[in-house]
Amino acid sequence: MKTLGEIASYVGGQLRGDASIEIKRVVHPALVRDNSDLALILSPGAASLISSGKITNAVLPEELADLPTPNRIIVNHPRLVLARVLELFARPVSVYPGVHPSAVIDPSAKIGRHTSIGPYCWIGPETRVGDHSRLVSHVSVGAEVQIGENALLHAGVRIGDRCQIGSRVIIQPNATIGGDGFAYVTPEPGSIESARASGEVRSFNDELVRINSIGNVVIEDDVEIGAGTCIDRGTLGETRVGRGSKLDNLVQVGHNVTIGTNCLIVAQVGLGGSSKVGHRVVVGGQAGLPDHLTIGDDAIILAQAGITSHIPARGIVIGSPAEPRRNFLEQQLNIKRIPRISKQIKELQQQVADLTEKLNSLTRED
Amino acid sequence: MKTLGEIASYVGGQLRGDASIEIKRVVHPALVRDNSDLALILSPGAASLISSGKITNAVLPEELADLPTPNRIIVNHPRLVLARVLELFARPVSVYPGVHPSAVIDPSAKIGRHTSIGPYCWIGPETRVGDHSRLVSHVSVGAEVQIGENALLHAGVRIGDRCQIGSRVIIQPNATIGGDGFAYVTPEPGSIESARASGEVRSFNDELVRINSIGNVVIEDDVEIGAGTCIDRGTLGETRVGRGSKLDNLVQVGHNVTIGTNCLIVAQVGLGGSSKVGHRVVVGGQAGLPDHLTIGDDAIILAQAGITSHIPARGIVIGSPAEPRRNFLEQQLNIKRIPRISKQIKELQQQVADLTEKLNSLTRED
Amino acid sequence: MKTLGEIASYVGGQLRGDASIEIKRVVHPALVRDNSDLALILSPGAASLISSGKITNAVLPEELADLPTPNRIIVNHPRLVLARVLELFARPVSVYPGVHPSAVIDPSAKIGRHTSIGPYCWIGPETRVGDHSRLVSHVSVGAEVQIGENALLHAGVRIGDRCQIGSRVIIQPNATIGGDGFAYVTPEPGSIESARASGEVRSFNDELVRINSIGNVVIEDDVEIGAGTCIDRGTLGETRVGRGSKLDNLVQVGHNVTIGTNCLIVAQVGLGGSSKVGHRVVVGGQAGLPDHLTIGDDAIILAQAGITSHIPARGIVIGSPAEPRRNFLEQQLNIKRIPRISKQIKELQQQVADLTEKLNSLTRED
Repeated sequence: MKTLGEIASYVGGQLRGDASIEIKRVVHPALVRDNSDLALILSPGAASLISSGKITNAVLPEELADLPTPNRIIVNHPRLVLARVLELFARPVSVYPGVHPSAVIDPSAKIGRHTSIGPYCWIGPETRVGDHSRLVSHVSVGAEVQIGENALLHAGVRIGDRCQIGSRVIIQPNATIGGDGFAYVTPEPGSIESARASGEVRSFNDELVRINSIGNVVIEDDVEIGAGTCIDRGTLGETRVGRGSKLDNLVQVGHNVTIGTNCLIVAQVGLGGSSKVGHRVVVGGQAGLPDHLTIGDDAIILAQAGITSHIPARGIVIGSPAEPRRNFLEQQLNIKRIPRISKQIKELQQQVADLTEKLNSLTRED
Repeated sequence: MKTLGEIASYVGGQLRGDASIEIKRVVHPALVRDNSDLALILSPGAASLISSGKITNAVLPEELADLPTPNRIIVNHPRLVLARVLELFARPVSVYPGVHPSAVIDPSAKIGRHTSIGPYCWIGPETRVGDHSRLVSHVSVGAEVQIGENALLHAGVRIGDRCQIGSRVIIQPNATIGGDGFAYVTPEPGSIESARASGEVRSFNDELVRINSIGNVVIEDDVEIGAGTCIDRGTLGETRVGRGSKLDNLVQVGHNVTIGTNCLIVAQVGLGGSSKVGHRVVVGGQAGLPDHLTIGDDAIILAQAGITSHIPARGIVIGSPAEPRRNFLEQQLNIKRIPRISKQIKELQQQVADLTEKLNSLTRED
Repeated sequence: MKTLGEIASYVGGQLRGDASIEIKRVVHPALVRDNSDLALILSPGAASLISSGKITNAVLPEELADLPTPNRIIVNHPRLVLARVLELFARPVSVYPGVHPSAVIDPSAKIGRHTSIGPYCWIGPETRVGDHSRLVSHVSVGAEVQIGENALLHAGVRIGDRCQIGSRVIIQPNATIGGDGFAYVTPEPGSIESARASGEVRSFNDELVRINSIGNVVIEDDVEIGAGTCIDRGTLGETRVGRGSKLDNLVQVGHNVTIGTNCLIVAQVGLGGSSKVGHRVVVGGQAGLPDHLTIGDDAIILAQAGITSHIPARGIVIGSPAEPRRNFLEQQLNIKRIPRISKQIKELQQQVADLTEKLNSLTRED
């Protein structure tokens, strides 16, 4: 519970009204119940709900500063303020305080102080879990794993042997860190080799030999990883996700991939083996990278893009195969010009036929 | 075990043959073993198997009514009859009757009557599970969750704190309900803002501030959710899946999304944050919606479509970027016309050159 | 621990240097620590690391045979040698030897000899697990399941009732085998039927009737299945993955699908219900197949392809909708020709106008 005055001060907003009101909940304006609720109004659309009269406390962007709510916090970056307010009011995940009696911890594992190891967690041999980390439930952590401090591993997270998880890392439910890479070799040249060489399938994948993954995965500090996301271990070395990068749900990260710092990888993206993603790269949902390609720093890969070549720093690409955004939009427009082109050609054909006829008649006349 | 007569009556079919035969199994015609098996023949293709003579009992569509099977149930909507017959013969999932000794149930949780709480299930504080519901195994249910009656939660399902699951809901293995939304804000304008404003990346995502999700997920009655599917909780309010909607495997549903009633969302679809999907919408496999878009009632989004704008009610769209189906097909045809257009242009160029030459020689003659 | 001589002999390489050196680890050349490490150098790029002088033992491709490393194994198929060396040096997954006390095994289940049933595994009634198989942790295996010998099921794998898993099968964490198929029927014609018939949505999915899946999944010997991958059970019969096929992470396999032998299905591919994939087919990442289509033997479906028709044996297709690769590349080039076409048309229009003018003036002169 915080007073309006404390909240205004924490988020750097301007308070109008009663600073002493105690706020119990921060809610969407449609869900306000009483005078202990603070409505977060981020856009003009939500403002219409204020007319009900139920809302007595509100966070408002500057352009709505004059809405008739008795108590207001006026802010100039509503989305950032949303983040700040929710830092104050987020309810922590329900976790068991301490090590749950049902948890199985190998005698050689070392568990830090003030950690939560919830029901049915399994911690393998020689593994270390840092102070204040929380494993919600059903988490499996293999052998020789390092987990930092203040990490939060939700239910059903899988961490394979020898992986390293930094401090303050958050991993959503059922994510898998450290599955084996998808790597096979055909002793004789296979279908892909022949297709590359000749454009046709002339040799066949009669035998697939597995390439074991003896590497690991390194997740640096402050990374977040979404539900169901899978990050494969390196073949010989490591697969690495850089400090502060955020991966959404159901993302696939192949073996030996390197992701830089502060990247945003939206849901269902696939990053092929050994691809290198720079710093602060944004990859839109369902986009795909093949093996061994490089994405430069600060590039933006738009949703559903299918990358087929290296992308320079700050490049903005879209489409499958992906093109620089300008080219892609131009191509889309050009495709829509084809009917007009066909019409123009018909007209030209008619005009040329007329001219020919006229010229012929002229020469005949001669 | 049902008699042929009972089955015919239940599915509304016309019986020819011996109504008293007792049927133990309903099977694909290729798998018939003896006279207690009932073969389901839904299409002419499967009918060829009947000649083996092994099949003595069959469900047949009207156009195959004269096949020489001794005992037949003739039906006029084979796919609906398939559903009805499988209601009679589906074998229930193997579950532990009652609360398994290995389950951990918080003392403040309330479990209904005739519920199955299988091995290694964990039920958090203040949570309620309705009568006749079944949690198969390894299910984790957070704090203050509501689960209705006759729900079926398969192995490894994760339900986050404060989510609500309706009655008769079925959730396939390893699905995650109530992971955190993927929401971050850059205190200063970041790469996306600059790309939107100028078409170029001129500012950078040097800092990513997390926006916590304090909302929940509401799954209404009769919804089904596929294996590995992830539904994120709302930021402030709720993410909602409407009554009777069906989501296939590996679907991503972002924070604050609303899905109407009776939708069909095929595998690997991604629905971006705050998108609104109407009633009875069909979304084909691997299609994607960005944030904040609306799909009208009864729209059909075809497989792999990449939506970029609102879709009206009953709209049928395809492609990435998605277009109304007619436009898309026309564009595909137009692209294939380009070689002919190039040829026509060459011909025109030749004709014009000839004309020019002829005209020149004519004027020279003059 | 193996000597260099033993390794050279096992991989069929040519040894130069001291055959008696004992190798403890096989590593990426950047990670060499001392004289007991063997550096694997597969490409000229990695060779630059050798100049540090730290690397005393290396596997080298023929074209790098003269690198100044004291002890060398020269090989002529580096990727195959990588596989062979990693067979020698892969560290086995950390598993509990025998049946962990926390595991729940139904009294009617039969567990083979030398099997590992790790923490929190649940084995249902009438199920059999073969000799030397390993279930790492949190694995759920339903009723009447068959699992072969030497199978490896990682943490959180779900096997539904009555499924069959072959010998030497490897299943990565959180994969689901035997979820229900996504199959519903509308008692009256629904939106899809009307869209197919008329191109418009004229009837509505007011009711969705579930079609239960009473079939199972059969995974043949030597198959590998990726993390988070989902394989639905057949409606009446089986869904089958053929011997030696490899499925990457987050792949969706619908009900009644048949996959042949030795296929490679890359991450995030979706195979619609009842599709038939031939032998040795390669499907690139994020590609999608609709229901009921057939892919011929040795076909190559490139990444993100959206299949819309049967693909012949050895076909190579790309794009959405997918086309033979040659056509697709040609179309991409043709689209890029449109601006030139527009320019040519403008020139023609000008030339024709000039001709017309000239001809008109000529006839006027007459």
